[in-house]
Amino acid sequence: MPRKSKTLPGALPPEDELVRVLTRGLPRTERTLTGAGDDCAVLRPGGAGRVELFKIDAVVEHIHFTRAMPAAAVGWKALCRAISDIAAMGGAPREALISLTAPPETPLAWVTDFYKGLKRAARRYGAGIAGGETTSAPAGSPLVISVALLGEADEKKILSRAGARPGDVLAVTGRLGDSFASGRHLALTPRVDEGQWLAAAGGVTAMMDVSDGLAKDLPRLAKQSRCGWRLDLAALPLHAGADTAGALADGEDHELLLTVSADRWPGLLADWRRRFPRLPLTRIGTMAPLRTREPKLSGGWDHFSGA
Amino acid sequence: MPRKSKTLPGALPPEDELVRVLTRGLPRTERTLTGAGDDCAVLRPGGAGRVELFKIDAVVEHIHFTRAMPAAAVGWKALCRAISDIAAMGGAPREALISLTAPPETPLAWVTDFYKGLKRAARRYGAGIAGGETTSAPAGSPLVISVALLGEADEKKILSRAGARPGDVLAVTGRLGDSFASGRHLALTPRVDEGQWLAAAGGVTAMMDVSDGLAKDLPRLAKQSRCGWRLDLAALPLHAGADTAGALADGEDHELLLTVSADRWPGLLADWRRRFPRLPLTRIGTMAPLRTREPKLSGGWDHFSGA
Repeated sequence: MPRKSKTLPGALPPEDELVRVLTRGLPRTERTLTGAGDDCAVLRPGGAGRVELFKIDAVVEHIHFTRAMPAAAVGWKALCRAISDIAAMGGAPREALISLTAPPETPLAWVTDFYKGLKRAARRYGAGIAGGETTSAPAGSPLVISVALLGEADEKKILSRAGARPGDVLAVTGRLGDSFASGRHLALTPRVDEGQWLAAAGGVTAMMDVSDGLAKDLPRLAKQSRCGWRLDLAALPLHAGADTAGALADGEDHELLLTVSADRWPGLLADWRRRFPRLPLTRIGTMAPLRTREPKLSGGWDHFSGA
Repeated sequence: MPRKSKTLPGALPPEDELVRVLTRGLPRTERTLTGAGDDCAVLRPGGAGRVELFKIDAVVEHIHFTRAMPAAAVGWKALCRAISDIAAMGGAPREALISLTAPPETPLAWVTDFYKGLKRAARRYGAGIAGGETTSAPAGSPLVISVALLGEADEKKILSRAGARPGDVLAVTGRLGDSFASGRHLALTPRVDEGQWLAAAGGVTAMMDVSDGLAKDLPRLAKQSRCGWRLDLAALPLHAGADTAGALADGEDHELLLTVSADRWPGLLADWRRRFPRLPLTRIGTMAPLRTREPKLSGGWDHFSGA
């Protein structure tokens, strides 16, 4: 069963040496008691009233990235995807663990550049990298990198997908569409400050991040909240070069989709514009009773079947 | 960039349907406020004096398992490997997240059987499965499953690799060797009760799990503790059919390797035999000053180079 291979020049060194290279200079949170180098990372969680948010997310070669893309950008993307999920519940990202599955011919330089991007993202958003593991894959296999990320939040302020009610305003941050063609999928900006601000602002009833396209993600939020929707397609905030179909189906926008009680919406929008003057917050519809689906949505990015 | 494929009969259904099938009847811990179905799992951690242990571990097709092995056994193995790392620090396993990367032709029955094994392991050891994610891989790619696992422990009772001192007794639980040929690598028994008992027993100075073979893992413990070793090869407890070379190099034993202060050792061993009468605890050597390596060790299982 165990497969072993000779080390190739420039390819991955023996595991302990690889781990030694990768764990140099990892950013670390103040709640990390033990980082890389032991059986587990050891963390001291927040005190009373604080909860831990917990997320796992993988990026796969040929699906989420290719070797033609800069490895540091892929590392940024790998961590920021998970950070975006923490942000979408109103939390602050804390410690990440990285699982790297790589065929033996993988260039060491690719992996170290990938880690540069991971570290840059961690530092930018106040997260740490508390360890990880490396596993070989058969020659020719795609690289697979899984990121497990903890976040921290006040229990009373987290926003789930489940709190929307008919009549709530449906809104989205930023602009949508064309993420792959534009390259934005690599340079995503998780809405960490925005998510925490929205969770504390009052009146926001549900929130999630748009990762698979509005056509897939809005029905998920509606389902968890036992609501329907009236989506105003003409109101969708589009990136230059994107169209409505792309805004619905392209995915990897990593903007926040949220619902706000109707009476709070005008005040929240005014407060938002003072706090985040450069990022649009756009009303794109209204939540409705369970069976209302205007329009019916299909498409979006599905990992296992054609749209 | 996005690759899409038609759903094959018996192969993986669209992502939301797959997630619906896989998240049915997941075991859940009492500290899980939100499980599968939102952007993140939400957990309420232990109170004052408690710490979180955090581990990620992947199993890869052709490396850690083949399709010829029962999928439920592979699921058991995937979770128990991570549980073993929590046990090795004296912690109790709590919530797991599962990242499944699968090519579209993967039979749905394989994945659901794999999850049966995961759930069985979680229930056996008091853990929950708080969610996860599924990602497609190009056709023909190996299956890769990453498990992120949290554990809980008293901050004052956790055992790291770093506490051994020259003169400490070196000991191991159970028996070593021949894990792959015997099939034991699939049916591993993480030493959860034993790890917590040892962490609370007093006198244990360092602990880890033997996952890559004693020849790789003892030097890791020694390095973290800034010690050397005198290993008594004739004392190694061998499984029937295993030899000393296998005990050193086969890996995947998932027994506990620990060091105990010499004055505490006789009492600890006597207490152990009363508490765990069916599992041997064997003295296999003594920790020594930094440069003592008797014998020098090489081999063990390395993920990126030949032994």
